[in-house]
Amino acid sequence: MYQNFTKLRVRYAETDQMGIAYYGAYNQYFEVGRVEALRSLNMSYRQMEEEGIMLPVRKVEIEYLKGAKYDDLLTIISRIEVFPTVRISFSHEIYNPEGELLTLGKVDLVFVSKKNRRPCKPPAEFIEKISPFFKSE
Amino acid sequence: MYQNFTKLRVRYAETDQMGIAYYGAYNQYFEVGRVEALRSLNMSYRQMEEEGIMLPVRKVEIEYLKGAKYDDLLTIISRIEVFPTVRISFSHEIYNPEGELLTLGKVDLVFVSKKNRRPCKPPAEFIEKISPFFKSE
Amino acid sequence: MYQNFTKLRVRYAETDQMGIAYYGAYNQYFEVGRVEALRSLNMSYRQMEEEGIMLPVRKVEIEYLKGAKYDDLLTIISRIEVFPTVRISFSHEIYNPEGELLTLGKVDLVFVSKKNRRPCKPPAEFIEKISPFFKSE
Amino acid sequence: MYQNFTKLRVRYAETDQMGIAYYGAYNQYFEVGRVEALRSLNMSYRQMEEEGIMLPVRKVEIEYLKGAKYDDLLTIISRIEVFPTVRISFSHEIYNPEGELLTLGKVDLVFVSKKNRRPCKPPAEFIEKISPFFKSE
Repeated sequence: MYQNFTKLRVRYAETDQMGIAYYGAYNQYFEVGRVEALRSLNMSYRQMEEEGIMLPVRKVEIEYLKGAKYDDLLTIISRIEVFPTVRISFSHEIYNPEGELLTLGKVDLVFVSKKNRRPCKPPAEFIEKISPFFKSE
Repeated sequence: MYQNFTKLRVRYAETDQMGIAYYGAYNQYFEVGRVEALRSLNMSYRQMEEEGIMLPVRKVEIEYLKGAKYDDLLTIISRIEVFPTVRISFSHEIYNPEGELLTLGKVDLVFVSKKNRRPCKPPAEFIEKISPFFKSE
Repeated sequence: MYQNFTKLRVRYAETDQMGIAYYGAYNQYFEVGRVEALRSLNMSYRQMEEEGIMLPVRKVEIEYLKGAKYDDLLTIISRIEVFPTVRISFSHEIYNPEGELLTLGKVDLVFVSKKNRRPCKPPAEFIEKISPFFKSE
Repeated sequence: MYQNFTKLRVRYAETDQMGIAYYGAYNQYFEVGRVEALRSLNMSYRQMEEEGIMLPVRKVEIEYLKGAKYDDLLTIISRIEVFPTVRISFSHEIYNPEGELLTLGKVDLVFVSKKNRRPCKPPAEFIEKISPFFKSE
C-alpha cells in the first residue's frame, strides 16, 4: 500500500450558505490529495499529461460525515491500496484540525492515451516508483 | 416514482484542460436537477431552507461514462424512486444532445433542522406533494 | 450598440457563508451573458474556438452593489458598445427579480489565434453579423 | 504599507479548455492572498467574522497579462497601501515560478457589521496590528 498526507485550507469560495464547504468541493480536495500523493513519489501528474497520458475519473463514491468549516486546515489522506493496472483507485479520508473524520472518498481513474483517447498502461516510471510499496512480505 | 427533466448548458468555467467538464462539476449539475425536480412539484428548496429545514448531502456515487463538452445542452433526469423519510435519495442521469448517456449519479440527502442541526421529518407540504407519485397501483 | 438579455439562476454551489453569491461567481455569470449574446447573433463561441480563434479575457472591472441570493433568477444584460477590433469589450449589468441592480461589469477580451496564440482579427462572419448594429444613423 | 507573500498551486479544476487557469479563478487566488496577509499579521478573518464583522467585496479590477498553467506554484503578493478605514483596498500581483508577472488585481472591500449589514469601523485589534506599517517616517 502507498499512502500520503496533504494539508489544505478551506477557502471562503468553497463554503456555501449552509456555512460549511459545498459537497462538490471535496472533489477538488481529493484531486489535490492525488496529485500530492504522486508528487511525494517524485511523479508529476502535469508531466505525465504533457508526455501523453491523462487520468480521467471513472467513478466516485463519497460519504459525508461532518462538514468542513471555512479556514479549517484539513488533512487529506490518500491511499493506493491495490496495485494499479489500466485502472487506479485512490481511497481518501479527510480530517479537520480537531481530528474528526469528515469525509470518506473512493476515486477510480483510468490511464488514457492522449493520442487516441483509449485506455493504456501506466507510465513505466510510475510502475517503477510505486512497486516497492507493493512488495510481498 | 417521481421524475423530472432539466436542461443545463456546460459553461466554459466548468471545462478543464482535458477539454471536457471537470468531474467535480457534475455535483452542481445534480444539484440543479434536484432543485428543479422540487420546483416542478411546486416546492422551493430555498423556501424550505428559509422555513428551517436544510438538506445536506450524505452520500454521492457517480459513474462517468463519457465527458460533457463545452456548450453542450445537457439533459438531467432526476428521479425519486423510494418514498422519502428522514433520508431522500435522488437518481440522476445526464445525457448530451446526441442522446448519449454521460453520467450516472446517486445522491443521498438528509432533512435536517436548521435550529438544532439534527435529522428531522420532511416538511408536511413536501410529503403531500410527492405522495401521489407513490400510490400503490 | 448591440445588447442582449439572459436569465440565469443562482446555484447553491455559488453561495458562500455570507449567504449571497461569492464575488468570483459573477465572472461565470458574465461569461454566460457573453456567450448568449453571441448566440442570439447566431454565432457560436464554441464553433469559433473549434475554427481556431479563442477569446481570452484581458481585463475585468466589477462593481458590487448588492448581493445575489440563492435561487434568484437573475437578468444579465450584455452590451457591445464599441465596434470590435482585435479587442472586444462587453458591458454587463445584473439585476435580481425585484429589479434591483446588483452588479456592473466590464470585460475586455482579445481575439487570439489558436495556432500561434497571437492577437488576430475577429472572424469575418462575426463582423458581418455585428455590423448592422453599428450603422451610422 | 503592509505586504505579504503567499504560495498557491493551480488546481486541475481551475484550468479550462484553453489550457490555463480560468479567469474567474483569480478571485479565489486573491482571496487566499488577503486571508494569508491577515494571518501573517496574526489576524484571523474567520475569527473576525465570528465576532460579527464581515468583509464583502465592493470592487474588483483585474488585468490578465499571461495565463497561469496547471500545477504552477504561484506567488501572490498582497499589499495594503492605504491605511484602512471603513474601506480596505488590497493590491495583488501574481507571479509564476519563472518570475513572470501574470496578473494584477485590485480588490476593495468594506467592513460590515453582521448584525445590521451596515458599514462599520475595522476591529480595534486590526487597527492596532496594521498601524506600525503606516507610521510616518
